[in-house]
Amino acid sequence: MSASPEKSLESLVLHTTDNGVSWITLNRPEAMNAVTWDQRERVIGLLEEASADPSVRAVVITGTGRGFCAGADLRGGPPGKAGASPGEAGAERIAGDVARTIRRGAQRLIAAVLDCEKPVIAAVNGTAAGIGAHLALACDLVLAAEGAKFIEVFARRGLVPDGGGAYLLPRLVGPQRAKELMFFGDALPAAEAARLGLVNRVVMDGELEETAREWAGRLAAGPTRALALTKQLVNTSLDGDRAAAFAAEAAAQEVNMTTADANEGVASFVERRTPRYRGR
Amino acid sequence: MSASPEKSLESLVLHTTDNGVSWITLNRPEAMNAVTWDQRERVIGLLEEASADPSVRAVVITGTGRGFCAGADLRGGPPGKAGASPGEAGAERIAGDVARTIRRGAQRLIAAVLDCEKPVIAAVNGTAAGIGAHLALACDLVLAAEGAKFIEVFARRGLVPDGGGAYLLPRLVGPQRAKELMFFGDALPAAEAARLGLVNRVVMDGELEETAREWAGRLAAGPTRALALTKQLVNTSLDGDRAAAFAAEAAAQEVNMTTADANEGVASFVERRTPRYRGR
Amino acid sequence: MSASPEKSLESLVLHTTDNGVSWITLNRPEAMNAVTWDQRERVIGLLEEASADPSVRAVVITGTGRGFCAGADLRGGPPGKAGASPGEAGAERIAGDVARTIRRGAQRLIAAVLDCEKPVIAAVNGTAAGIGAHLALACDLVLAAEGAKFIEVFARRGLVPDGGGAYLLPRLVGPQRAKELMFFGDALPAAEAARLGLVNRVVMDGELEETAREWAGRLAAGPTRALALTKQLVNTSLDGDRAAAFAAEAAAQEVNMTTADANEGVASFVERRTPRYRGR
Repeated sequence: MSASPEKSLESLVLHTTDNGVSWITLNRPEAMNAVTWDQRERVIGLLEEASADPSVRAVVITGTGRGFCAGADLRGGPPGKAGASPGEAGAERIAGDVARTIRRGAQRLIAAVLDCEKPVIAAVNGTAAGIGAHLALACDLVLAAEGAKFIEVFARRGLVPDGGGAYLLPRLVGPQRAKELMFFGDALPAAEAARLGLVNRVVMDGELEETAREWAGRLAAGPTRALALTKQLVNTSLDGDRAAAFAAEAAAQEVNMTTADANEGVASFVERRTPRYRGR
Repeated sequence: MSASPEKSLESLVLHTTDNGVSWITLNRPEAMNAVTWDQRERVIGLLEEASADPSVRAVVITGTGRGFCAGADLRGGPPGKAGASPGEAGAERIAGDVARTIRRGAQRLIAAVLDCEKPVIAAVNGTAAGIGAHLALACDLVLAAEGAKFIEVFARRGLVPDGGGAYLLPRLVGPQRAKELMFFGDALPAAEAARLGLVNRVVMDGELEETAREWAGRLAAGPTRALALTKQLVNTSLDGDRAAAFAAEAAAQEVNMTTADANEGVASFVERRTPRYRGR
Repeated sequence: MSASPEKSLESLVLHTTDNGVSWITLNRPEAMNAVTWDQRERVIGLLEEASADPSVRAVVITGTGRGFCAGADLRGGPPGKAGASPGEAGAERIAGDVARTIRRGAQRLIAAVLDCEKPVIAAVNGTAAGIGAHLALACDLVLAAEGAKFIEVFARRGLVPDGGGAYLLPRLVGPQRAKELMFFGDALPAAEAARLGLVNRVVMDGELEETAREWAGRLAAGPTRALALTKQLVNTSLDGDRAAAFAAEAAAQEVNMTTADANEGVASFVERRTPRYRGR
């Protein structure tokens, strides 16, 4: 379960780009994909690349084996400072460093997903626990295999949810159900997660990758800038009031109407033909 | 599908008032009730009248034919400036005008519903697409015929949702489902819309008008000022924090207790009789 | 139905502490537990005590008889000022006092639940109406007996919901369903309440107390400070934006990592044993 120094970071977080889709795959199945500090940094880097790269038009995050991401690796830590992070730390840590470590670690990972300017799909292949659950919930769309489960494991470890869990979960299922999940830390099976509204779709275990490929393919063929602006409006919609939302919407429209895809979309409608979006 | 200049605006947006209920009916069935600039202005005007007129105590918005409202008419525009609005514009438009047109158009329509001081029921008789979907979602209560469907059509046209869609939809179904609907633009049948929480009630196609009449009748017999204050508190409840909500509630209570209906309500309870509200 | 001066306040609001759980039981079954001014003050006091007392680690609020709490007693009022509160007042009241009475009364009760630093479970044994419904919805977890029902009774009395109802309900079920419940004031059976998301779990009438005891017992064995911080983060999660939520989370983590329970939680995980939380 340790950080497997014998494996390269490139093999611990697999990365391929295929038909405009960036696939980010956690690959430490022997640890149920509990993420180390290094893996997390690499995921953040890949999300920032996907956000900036015009040839990438959708992102999929998934894992190998029975875990999507079983949380933060409790034995890892930033280089040279083992165990400085709650949820990752041993019993000893440096007072005063906790808030900073959270901001620099778990919250930065979640922000990288929320702020990625491409649609991000979580393909939840197995257990999503702790920060692993929040990594999934931060994604724009969540597909889950039948055998997947979500676990707000923090309270069971004496901890407070990190990575914006208390920000994300009540937006999806309301404060009451969020507290039930967070207080008890029981495993929530995929079907129940879908019923509560944590998951867009549950598919048979063997069909997860194919469905993710199909969804990502549709998104990658879409008007990328319009999708990014829509994502941003939805992500901030519960952060402010109506006046702020309306002003942001008007600005987003103004930006979007400068894109070739907006012109293509309207022109194709007028000409009664299928649009061809080029992602700009 | 063009703006049918041969028909009067009064025939394109039908209006009757019946037993304290203002019925606003989009009537361009040959265009699935895609709204033109003129129709939208008339709907806004009727909502403002209903808000101000003490004899109106509830509003119903509906459509004739197979469409509730299929969006903004892509070929219409403000008088003398064809195509100045995204979602309504052809491939050419005037830079810098987009944000202003959105504010003056789609957002003003939605605000007219949200701020109407009478309860507004959407009786969704058929397809509600684009701004037509948001018009329905802005209403206080949404009744849908079995054959109705909701379509967030924007991304399919290369566009960003307008009329506050990214403000309204996540409040009803959470950000994850909102993004699924907005990214893909697939049609959502009424039964599924009800399951997700976009619709209060689905009824058989032939029973929509009767149910709307019954619901509106109950509301029109209610304590109109208390309902308006309740509507306002609920509409702003996700716009701010607890302190703001509690202060607004206290002020609303103070205002309501000056009404005859509040006195009638309490008196009728004490006297163990049915209250008779007069709407003031 | 009057305030039963012959019964002591201690008998009108029963209180016991058992295995770290504070049980607060409304006991005026002949009035369906409509709360008087005095009862409400006692409940607020007991919640404040539970919040401050380190030996209390969970709270249960319930009622005797067929009512959980049927609202505010319309015939009671603050000592020496009968009927000064809307929802509690007769037809006469003192102008200018309404907003203040709401703040001092219903809102203070709801705030005492929301701000209690221990998890609070509502065990809804029967009818929860008016402020009684909001008392339940303010609790962290809501268990309901099959025979229970929720009634937003305000509009039926010509009143605007008080006690933060328009703040609480849309966070649980969205603005559209909140308005349906508040405009019509119809009774919502427990099973339907669970389907809409107002209730965590519905149990058979005879099993309510046992389930509440089991849930409270689990919470009382948990890391009390972490649960309190989690509760606070979730309760404020829809009150602000992402930056505020992330900052609050980082601060909560910093606070929590100073507790013995956080160290115990992490240590027990590393040592692969069951944690023993002491609530500090």
